[in-house]
Amino acid sequence: MGSVPAPLARLIQELVKLPGIGEKTATRLAFHLTRTTRGDVDALAAALTALRDELHTCAECCALAASDPCELCADPRRPGDVVCVVEESADLAAVERAGTFRGRYHVLGGTLAPLDGIGPDELNVRPLLRRLDAGIVREVIIATNPTTEGEATALYLAQQIKPRGVRVTRIAHGLPMGGDVEYADLVTLGRALDGRREM
Amino acid sequence: MGSVPAPLARLIQELVKLPGIGEKTATRLAFHLTRTTRGDVDALAAALTALRDELHTCAECCALAASDPCELCADPRRPGDVVCVVEESADLAAVERAGTFRGRYHVLGGTLAPLDGIGPDELNVRPLLRRLDAGIVREVIIATNPTTEGEATALYLAQQIKPRGVRVTRIAHGLPMGGDVEYADLVTLGRALDGRREM
Repeated sequence: MGSVPAPLARLIQELVKLPGIGEKTATRLAFHLTRTTRGDVDALAAALTALRDELHTCAECCALAASDPCELCADPRRPGDVVCVVEESADLAAVERAGTFRGRYHVLGGTLAPLDGIGPDELNVRPLLRRLDAGIVREVIIATNPTTEGEATALYLAQQIKPRGVRVTRIAHGLPMGGDVEYADLVTLGRALDGRREM
Repeated sequence: MGSVPAPLARLIQELVKLPGIGEKTATRLAFHLTRTTRGDVDALAAALTALRDELHTCAECCALAASDPCELCADPRRPGDVVCVVEESADLAAVERAGTFRGRYHVLGGTLAPLDGIGPDELNVRPLLRRLDAGIVREVIIATNPTTEGEATALYLAQQIKPRGVRVTRIAHGLPMGGDVEYADLVTLGRALDGRREM
């Protein structure tokens, strides 16, 4: 890298830290940025700084938000009796994009991983149970990822929530739309059969 | 995107402007940045700002550099009699990484594109000819890309340089190392045959 000027090398070094960006991509991006207008580079730098200054965590649902409470928690048109539990704020955004769910959310901040020292106290489990104890929530939809960790976390949450007299449901697992029965993996196909519905 | 907090949406919007980064990748990167330490985000923002403040163009070779003249032009150990002409500073970095060339460089800043209104005056052609007129350069190696535009630019430069009594050479075209004769395209294979060398 001795041939790359220091300011560029430094930018490449920072870009390489991002997921899915190797040294070649980082170099291409950095050189691209030298060719863009100053305004664009400044806008990107300002957007990064704003992330630190303007992004908050909603005290109610623990989601990343521009305000506290977040827009969703503050929206009186959203019924507060159904709460969808997701791992990350990115998952919340994905469920919102689907556009079919109109209730509230709760962001766990990850999954249980005892071997990595991540127990219920490292996640936003306590704030969730506190919300339930307020007596308004009637159903919790658990939308953690269909991975080993996500399933284990869903099971743990169900155990904690059920004794509180709140209904606990899990999002359906099955073939993705546009998927192919022939090429579906065994576990997904098994789940799709188990979860079959009357037509 | 209504479900993504404004500061995040703004960052995604800026990231999408980068080449090869679509909305999904931009969203993944932005959410990743919310999970990294503040130090990392600040370092990235600072590296972007430094690009504007600390990156100069070398008056001699027109390359992006941390200083003017750049390190390469200021290096007394580099003979000034051979100049390698490249399209962009990124190409200069690539040739430097190869590690076999020890002369000087000249960055054109692109290729001729008459239809887009890019003629010799829009590129760093004049500064190159001025360097040659100083009488020190004996050979110019043209290392523009082996594309239609790169070839046309190479031809134009050769026409300009030869009357000045300076030797003009072009980097070799042929099969890339590890390449396969069977799958090589016709033009590359033709060039490889034309450019064959005594063993």
